[in-house]
Amino acid sequence: MKLIRFGQPDQEKPGVLLDGTRYDVSAHFVDYDEKFFAHGGLQQLADLLQHQAGQLPVVPAEVRLGPPVARPSKIVCVGLNYADHARETGATPPSEPVLFMKSTTALVGPFDNIVIPRGSVKTDWEVELAVVIGKKASYVEEADALQYVAGYALHNDVSEREFQIERGGTWDKGKGCDTFAPIGPWLATPDELGDVDSLRLWLTVNGQKMQDGTTAEFIFRIPHLISYISQFMTLLPGDVISTGTPAGVGLGMTPPVYLQPGDVVELGIDGLGTSRQVLKAYGQD
Amino acid sequence: MKLIRFGQPDQEKPGVLLDGTRYDVSAHFVDYDEKFFAHGGLQQLADLLQHQAGQLPVVPAEVRLGPPVARPSKIVCVGLNYADHARETGATPPSEPVLFMKSTTALVGPFDNIVIPRGSVKTDWEVELAVVIGKKASYVEEADALQYVAGYALHNDVSEREFQIERGGTWDKGKGCDTFAPIGPWLATPDELGDVDSLRLWLTVNGQKMQDGTTAEFIFRIPHLISYISQFMTLLPGDVISTGTPAGVGLGMTPPVYLQPGDVVELGIDGLGTSRQVLKAYGQD
Repeated sequence: MKLIRFGQPDQEKPGVLLDGTRYDVSAHFVDYDEKFFAHGGLQQLADLLQHQAGQLPVVPAEVRLGPPVARPSKIVCVGLNYADHARETGATPPSEPVLFMKSTTALVGPFDNIVIPRGSVKTDWEVELAVVIGKKASYVEEADALQYVAGYALHNDVSEREFQIERGGTWDKGKGCDTFAPIGPWLATPDELGDVDSLRLWLTVNGQKMQDGTTAEFIFRIPHLISYISQFMTLLPGDVISTGTPAGVGLGMTPPVYLQPGDVVELGIDGLGTSRQVLKAYGQD
Repeated sequence: MKLIRFGQPDQEKPGVLLDGTRYDVSAHFVDYDEKFFAHGGLQQLADLLQHQAGQLPVVPAEVRLGPPVARPSKIVCVGLNYADHARETGATPPSEPVLFMKSTTALVGPFDNIVIPRGSVKTDWEVELAVVIGKKASYVEEADALQYVAGYALHNDVSEREFQIERGGTWDKGKGCDTFAPIGPWLATPDELGDVDSLRLWLTVNGQKMQDGTTAEFIFRIPHLISYISQFMTLLPGDVISTGTPAGVGLGMTPPVYLQPGDVVELGIDGLGTSRQVLKAYGQD
């Protein structure tokens, strides 16, 4: 299944994408939130689509898409999880996963604008595969970890490099700015995706290819990440893990290249669709 | 006003503390959550107490207290914000606030147990003044910042020092373990507290005084912190900012001292009451 959320920001309703058409399931489900995933929502949605797909209202194509999951309790991100990206940033590939957190207020839809924060001169892009958790996960064994996955989505882990690296403290300052987490267009359940360890992912800026990687280059694979994170904190249904970015970010270029107002970022992952964001200066309409 | 939440974990109801007696206001309010603070809940609660305080049901003293706020969108913490604590950890006092995030799944009540995570040998304490945000805050000016405060609470920013410092990446790994954020007993509105820049705060382990500081030692005061954080991310109503800890944590001792199963931590801040947590090993009843 491909789950979408549509409508105005903070008023999104749940829907599905079937053969390229969007359908409204808001008569049957409140939202794709913690309760939905915790209480068998995915199975109920599958049952609904099996029996009543033909009777669902169509959502017009011009309606905005929001992020395909409601605001989660947390977005946990993995840094330096592709060997080529670790090299380009000058970091030693880590011996265990590098974690940081992204404020959930950063979440926006896949075609929303990215707002360059006030005073920012180093706003950067990162195409990432995001994992959405389907059930409460604490001290999960790696062998069981994929049972805790509700699905996968495309994520641009937008990052302000000065805030992240040059302002003291942890990376969190440069990761959670408003609009810095465009997710979607859809949440794909695992059956839609096949082997998540060989997905191509790419990103362009103004049409120029900047990132072109594959999840085959993961330093730490998804079952390891879920198990690892669950040793440090409980993951709740609907929580998002973002699994790191391949080479080709602005910070890694010589000299570094950062996003400017008017720039257009497009990105995609096999099976997870594409998204597109236009950069705006703070305060610009 | 002193706001409390009472009842079993994840089923807490809102209440108030009046002259030492707990009253149930759940017939009037759903919870002390984002909606409550965003939609004038504090004023409505004040009106209720003015007109109907005598008719509120009493909550028996043996009922568990939960954290005085519902799970927020985020807990943003400030590191090294007391000059004496920065010195004891060997860190240079920062030139701007050090921020990190604490997973909201860490939140527990003020008298709940602290669970030492599996494999942990360096679980440490930190008495802190927590600020609860009352309205959406983005790019707030320092002069206006206190208008965004709903109230204050006592917080033990429990920290696993190996996870925080020796496991790679940011501090977040050692800050968000389950039960690592006992908050309460109550949320005090600003009028209850007087000058927040001269509050005494203390912590004992098994009756021995470990921390005994005052918020007069803040490197960065609360209006600066709110304004500063709001440059990097939007703070939502109900969000928690924890403002750092004074000297006397286990990490700062020679040799370092960490918490063991059975240890009892007690802490308090002027006007914000006291809390008490017993340490348990993971898996221990």
